[in-house]
Amino acid sequence: MLDPTLATPAVRRLIDLALEEDLGRGDVTTAAVIAPDTTAAAHLVTREPLVLAGLGVCTEVFLRVDATVRATELAQDGQRVTAGTTVASYTGKAASLLAAERTALNFVQRLSGTASLARAFVDAAAGSGLRITDTRKTTPGFRLLEKYAVRMGGASNHRHDLGSGVLIKDNHVAVAGGVRAAVERIRGQVPHGLKIEVEVDSLDQLEEALAARADIVLLDNFGPADVERAVARVEKAVHRPLLEVSGGVSLQRISELGRAGVDLVSVGALTHSARAMDLGLDIVIGDRTA
Amino acid sequence: MLDPTLATPAVRRLIDLALEEDLGRGDVTTAAVIAPDTTAAAHLVTREPLVLAGLGVCTEVFLRVDATVRATELAQDGQRVTAGTTVASYTGKAASLLAAERTALNFVQRLSGTASLARAFVDAAAGSGLRITDTRKTTPGFRLLEKYAVRMGGASNHRHDLGSGVLIKDNHVAVAGGVRAAVERIRGQVPHGLKIEVEVDSLDQLEEALAARADIVLLDNFGPADVERAVARVEKAVHRPLLEVSGGVSLQRISELGRAGVDLVSVGALTHSARAMDLGLDIVIGDRTA
Amino acid sequence: MLDPTLATPAVRRLIDLALEEDLGRGDVTTAAVIAPDTTAAAHLVTREPLVLAGLGVCTEVFLRVDATVRATELAQDGQRVTAGTTVASYTGKAASLLAAERTALNFVQRLSGTASLARAFVDAAAGSGLRITDTRKTTPGFRLLEKYAVRMGGASNHRHDLGSGVLIKDNHVAVAGGVRAAVERIRGQVPHGLKIEVEVDSLDQLEEALAARADIVLLDNFGPADVERAVARVEKAVHRPLLEVSGGVSLQRISELGRAGVDLVSVGALTHSARAMDLGLDIVIGDRTA
Amino acid sequence: MLDPTLATPAVRRLIDLALEEDLGRGDVTTAAVIAPDTTAAAHLVTREPLVLAGLGVCTEVFLRVDATVRATELAQDGQRVTAGTTVASYTGKAASLLAAERTALNFVQRLSGTASLARAFVDAAAGSGLRITDTRKTTPGFRLLEKYAVRMGGASNHRHDLGSGVLIKDNHVAVAGGVRAAVERIRGQVPHGLKIEVEVDSLDQLEEALAARADIVLLDNFGPADVERAVARVEKAVHRPLLEVSGGVSLQRISELGRAGVDLVSVGALTHSARAMDLGLDIVIGDRTA
Amino acid sequence: MLDPTLATPAVRRLIDLALEEDLGRGDVTTAAVIAPDTTAAAHLVTREPLVLAGLGVCTEVFLRVDATVRATELAQDGQRVTAGTTVASYTGKAASLLAAERTALNFVQRLSGTASLARAFVDAAAGSGLRITDTRKTTPGFRLLEKYAVRMGGASNHRHDLGSGVLIKDNHVAVAGGVRAAVERIRGQVPHGLKIEVEVDSLDQLEEALAARADIVLLDNFGPADVERAVARVEKAVHRPLLEVSGGVSLQRISELGRAGVDLVSVGALTHSARAMDLGLDIVIGDRTA
Amino acid sequence: MLDPTLATPAVRRLIDLALEEDLGRGDVTTAAVIAPDTTAAAHLVTREPLVLAGLGVCTEVFLRVDATVRATELAQDGQRVTAGTTVASYTGKAASLLAAERTALNFVQRLSGTASLARAFVDAAAGSGLRITDTRKTTPGFRLLEKYAVRMGGASNHRHDLGSGVLIKDNHVAVAGGVRAAVERIRGQVPHGLKIEVEVDSLDQLEEALAARADIVLLDNFGPADVERAVARVEKAVHRPLLEVSGGVSLQRISELGRAGVDLVSVGALTHSARAMDLGLDIVIGDRTA
Repeated sequence: MLDPTLATPAVRRLIDLALEEDLGRGDVTTAAVIAPDTTAAAHLVTREPLVLAGLGVCTEVFLRVDATVRATELAQDGQRVTAGTTVASYTGKAASLLAAERTALNFVQRLSGTASLARAFVDAAAGSGLRITDTRKTTPGFRLLEKYAVRMGGASNHRHDLGSGVLIKDNHVAVAGGVRAAVERIRGQVPHGLKIEVEVDSLDQLEEALAARADIVLLDNFGPADVERAVARVEKAVHRPLLEVSGGVSLQRISELGRAGVDLVSVGALTHSARAMDLGLDIVIGDRTA
Repeated sequence: MLDPTLATPAVRRLIDLALEEDLGRGDVTTAAVIAPDTTAAAHLVTREPLVLAGLGVCTEVFLRVDATVRATELAQDGQRVTAGTTVASYTGKAASLLAAERTALNFVQRLSGTASLARAFVDAAAGSGLRITDTRKTTPGFRLLEKYAVRMGGASNHRHDLGSGVLIKDNHVAVAGGVRAAVERIRGQVPHGLKIEVEVDSLDQLEEALAARADIVLLDNFGPADVERAVARVEKAVHRPLLEVSGGVSLQRISELGRAGVDLVSVGALTHSARAMDLGLDIVIGDRTA
Repeated sequence: MLDPTLATPAVRRLIDLALEEDLGRGDVTTAAVIAPDTTAAAHLVTREPLVLAGLGVCTEVFLRVDATVRATELAQDGQRVTAGTTVASYTGKAASLLAAERTALNFVQRLSGTASLARAFVDAAAGSGLRITDTRKTTPGFRLLEKYAVRMGGASNHRHDLGSGVLIKDNHVAVAGGVRAAVERIRGQVPHGLKIEVEVDSLDQLEEALAARADIVLLDNFGPADVERAVARVEKAVHRPLLEVSGGVSLQRISELGRAGVDLVSVGALTHSARAMDLGLDIVIGDRTA
Repeated sequence: MLDPTLATPAVRRLIDLALEEDLGRGDVTTAAVIAPDTTAAAHLVTREPLVLAGLGVCTEVFLRVDATVRATELAQDGQRVTAGTTVASYTGKAASLLAAERTALNFVQRLSGTASLARAFVDAAAGSGLRITDTRKTTPGFRLLEKYAVRMGGASNHRHDLGSGVLIKDNHVAVAGGVRAAVERIRGQVPHGLKIEVEVDSLDQLEEALAARADIVLLDNFGPADVERAVARVEKAVHRPLLEVSGGVSLQRISELGRAGVDLVSVGALTHSARAMDLGLDIVIGDRTA
Repeated sequence: MLDPTLATPAVRRLIDLALEEDLGRGDVTTAAVIAPDTTAAAHLVTREPLVLAGLGVCTEVFLRVDATVRATELAQDGQRVTAGTTVASYTGKAASLLAAERTALNFVQRLSGTASLARAFVDAAAGSGLRITDTRKTTPGFRLLEKYAVRMGGASNHRHDLGSGVLIKDNHVAVAGGVRAAVERIRGQVPHGLKIEVEVDSLDQLEEALAARADIVLLDNFGPADVERAVARVEKAVHRPLLEVSGGVSLQRISELGRAGVDLVSVGALTHSARAMDLGLDIVIGDRTA
Repeated sequence: MLDPTLATPAVRRLIDLALEEDLGRGDVTTAAVIAPDTTAAAHLVTREPLVLAGLGVCTEVFLRVDATVRATELAQDGQRVTAGTTVASYTGKAASLLAAERTALNFVQRLSGTASLARAFVDAAAGSGLRITDTRKTTPGFRLLEKYAVRMGGASNHRHDLGSGVLIKDNHVAVAGGVRAAVERIRGQVPHGLKIEVEVDSLDQLEEALAARADIVLLDNFGPADVERAVARVEKAVHRPLLEVSGGVSLQRISELGRAGVDLVSVGALTHSARAMDLGLDIVIGDRTA
């Protein structure tokens, strides 16, 4: 079943776009070979170990093609599964199952890819207090789905969009005439429920951010030594902000950042460069109904 | 400019979905810091060598946010560019450029990823007659865009969707009672402009395909020796079909397949597992207009 | 029930457009006269002999207006029915049945018109090997539906759209510098599953097409004598292409073309000039529910 | 240019549906043969005498595909034109003109068909006071466009939809318990700007309609003699309603109805059974731009 | 249940827009606090006396968020209810009920506001023959919903839109060169089922309207004395038109207009300035399901 | 011009919905009276003092109907204007201006109503540090537009939607087993850029909120004395949260809350019960173009 947080008109519109592009002219092969009343069962099976995400979307695709398909989900999003696990079974008209197959797989393979990569980062941070978050570097149209997959992998979400979080970046700083000026100008201008985060590219700018009492400071492309200095500095601040690190952070560097005492690391690769996981559909063609 | 083959309602709808999800609540940070009449220039710069694809989509995103943005494209889709190349410049209101930035980048980074990976496969096949093609394992909603990126990388497109090509797969064969029966049943049932392609998983099935005079035979998960045997066999056939190989083919195996004399290899990874290329937007904030 | 090949988002969007335009402001007459809880039965009856097409679409319209309507289909698309046959019955709220009536009829009358005309052409070709196909001269928005109706009439589909078939027309030939040059240029540029069809307007051009080994040759506006010459010529070709005839072909000319040995004739009139078949809805108003 | 009454979101959505279905996968032939920077001119020429309708829609299709196409309309909707008249010229990229060609023609051929048929009916009624009107038997999705074409043919529009006119039909009469009861029940229930029209199937019912002071009476399937009696009867009425005739009225019967003194005749065939008019696009391929 | 007259694609699209804007990024609070399998009941309770409208839309919102919610409507649109009345109960997943809550309330509060205000005007006119109607001054996107709410308050609908009624206003009169010229020019140009209404701003113009035999005359911003004179004048007319009054008419002035013998008064405030009625959702969190 | 923060696909979709419902069947009156080539000027004039909001939306409506209309905006959103001020002028085809008139006015009247009411609240709080904010009690589909109007009136925005702010309400507290437990459970579960706000209904609950170090405390329906006690209490807290008051707060109570030292008051009436401001369009019909 589609997770409640995904049951939005925009997700339904994306599913429609996807079906339209694969199925909008029918399936000429199946129509010619398989009688309309032939039934089948389709088993969704993992071909490698992975963290599952998007099972409900997969099911939704089948139901959107044919509301009479019966779906049995045998695993849950967020679950680690080994290769060879059957995570769902679908039964109904063979033509419907074949029509939905590719689109359904394309969703669940991609979302499981993001969840599995997120899980790898979270595991690398285990034991430290470091939180792994995503970014806005998502596949266009997939923001909601990919942020969901990130959560299924155990990581956290950064702001959803430009309207649901404050992040003062270099261009804003340049216009405002400095980090401190930027933070102070913004206070009182944004919805009161949003914390103020500011990106800094040097320890000097960090001082300004502390002086302006920013809630969160994003260390952009800081090397290991400067990260340590930044952590040491904020530990002594009266109003200690959260410290976030970003900038092409690899899986290898996570444990170092965890030990350094950073609070958050945002990782664009979770959504912009995850490879698809290998899941397949084993189809068993059945009898023709009366 | 958006390539004519991409100027479709569905592509526009996807761009709208993407803008809605990133910008649908406005940009609280920019609104608070940057005066509405501030102007800026934004330069799209490569951060690594790549084959460009999606520049027109990138431009379209800027224009969709604000039709008064002026765009200058300095490179062309399909072009190989080195790191540090400025491939486009956009000028207009700073708020508009910042609003479009992330969505525009998300498109061009992803599509250049696919074009660059396609180019690597095409280069690996250079000198042989082997054609590299994509599959239907595309990002949902991106079929048209990703198949375009594949072409920009110099590779070829397989069928666009279930309605624009015949591919008889294992399930169809099972229902029809064999490869030969399937091919024969389908002839005369599908639009006459479509060739008939059939997937086989053994040399025995290849014999059936030849007997049925299939136009194209897809060798599914054949090892190197069987690929060679298959090529040798069809060379002697009266009605020689095209031979296609598929099944998790890696970049490393391409030259071997080229030497073997295969006609086509279809590679899902071009679209399902390409990583995003690194392109960034260098923004120069300008004056405030009168 | 809506045929699986028609259950696409675009068809649903067309049904919505149609309901919106007829029903978007309600039904002022029914609202004033008929109590909301009044029930009724509506029987869909043919008023002339016809080949049925669009029954599932008709049912879908009723269900879209009111999901509680119960539908019983008593005939099948593709079936020849005599005048006075009840092909479906719908029961439910009288207001819902009256609201859906006109839109439902407009679909089934039009699609049955195309199916019936297609059937007349197919019958005229009976005994010969001539296949009747449609064209892209369809009602805008109805491509999928009308091509389905053509199949229900026993005829075949030509390419669905500009992306799912290759047809080199006079303008392409002019640009390429001749029929042979055009065919040769295109080979290797289009998806490998598509045959190459080229339009010729003379026997000389036919020679070029044969030399270029085109898969299908379209004889545009050829007279009877030239058609016979063309057939005789291709019978002697090494690589015999399919021969298609087009250009305002009337029902009367079909048997002549069949005897001549042509493979295919494409008929625009099937979709651009079929008249609506006469089907009506006999409504029996029932009791008011509790 | 699109007539102001047609410049609605729903018409734009229909144009999008049509382009999507013909062009949504690109144009594989043109892409392979014609260089992207090749220019062309396309002249829209009549192949038979007709009354033009839909020229603006045709132009809109070209502009929707490519906003840089330049359009010159040389005739006006509603105009009678002889065979061989150039009614518009379009210049721009050859690929854009070829991409829009079929969809643009499909609109203008169909709408000119309705306008021409409407004009034939109007001409047949010339000299009498008889008004020819359309019905709701329109192509789904084309209500606005076809009613416009009807006006371009010189005929009048009946109610646009179920919400913009009152028409009491047999089922309403049955529920209300008679013509008079139905008319009286409805008065005061519907927007005060709508006249009340009631369908009658006998002279007795006409008496009831007169007694109830209906504004318009629709004589359903009346023979010539009864039509004359009905006209004679209403001429003597205190409150003379308009008299409308409907029911499969052929072109041949129009002059008889005109002489009889009927006010209106509604003709479903104008929209449900008009054949497409023959217009073609003569394309002249030009040079390649720098 | 959604009233049949509201079950249109456009209403569904508005509901989608509303859900998207409130729920399109999920509900971060509920997701963090309430387990997904927690159930709840939500009772819709009035906090002040009101005339109910929009209960079906409210239910539709809950079902659109989660089709498994069970709804029990305990009152009917159009009903007067006292403060503290439970008008509907919804049970299902707590997360779904909380997600739909605000959007559902926003609809029913607003529509009940219009129905309650309409009822106040209708009550003020009780005993006279004066009909209260709405105008086109509706909330953009809410035309159908608000006109429905007006009917639920016992008032009548004016024309739905510019295409479903004739209203000659001052600008039309100016162009035509006078009231009489305008009315006469329009007769025969508009669908025959529409009455002709003309706006006049003086008794002189009223004379012209009578001479032209307008069906309805709208007295624009007439004072009490002129209203009385106008009524007296039309009572003596051969062809007595309906008289409508408009122009910021307050609740206080209704009984005066009723006594004066006016037929209709159109009140923009019903839709453009009704305040929201106070209804709330009492939520009882239940157990977690297995 | 449409403000950049409003130039989103969803706002365009709402404008389309509105035009479709008013203009979707054309304008029968204007079409019959005014020649298509007649030009006109339309001046948007205030009929009462107001704070302007929605001028850009108004302009957008005119341009959407007819892109050739020329617009001159003479005032700015957020500006206080006296009665009788011309705030914009539009020139173009008379038919286009009349077609857009009602929809354009419906937007600007409504949004100016909200801006003017917001301004009244802000003025009442002048001199104190009290911020006035809106709520999610907006017109469905108008969230973005109404929150913009609130800002134009000088007030602040609360969270945009359920996904862009944390607000723990009574139901969440009940499930979590108390205010403190709820706040503590949520920390770490929500995006790190969001502050945590919790609603309390007693001073005891306020203590729990302080203990849990909530960032913002919402005092729900507190009387004046309890508000004062709450302010006094938080002033002594180590981690002083923001204090927000809500619950049917009237304009009269604002200065009292300002004096009491509350930080924020959220006012649903700004969006759910603002009356439309009176602005009209003075149209001057011009000549007919050649």
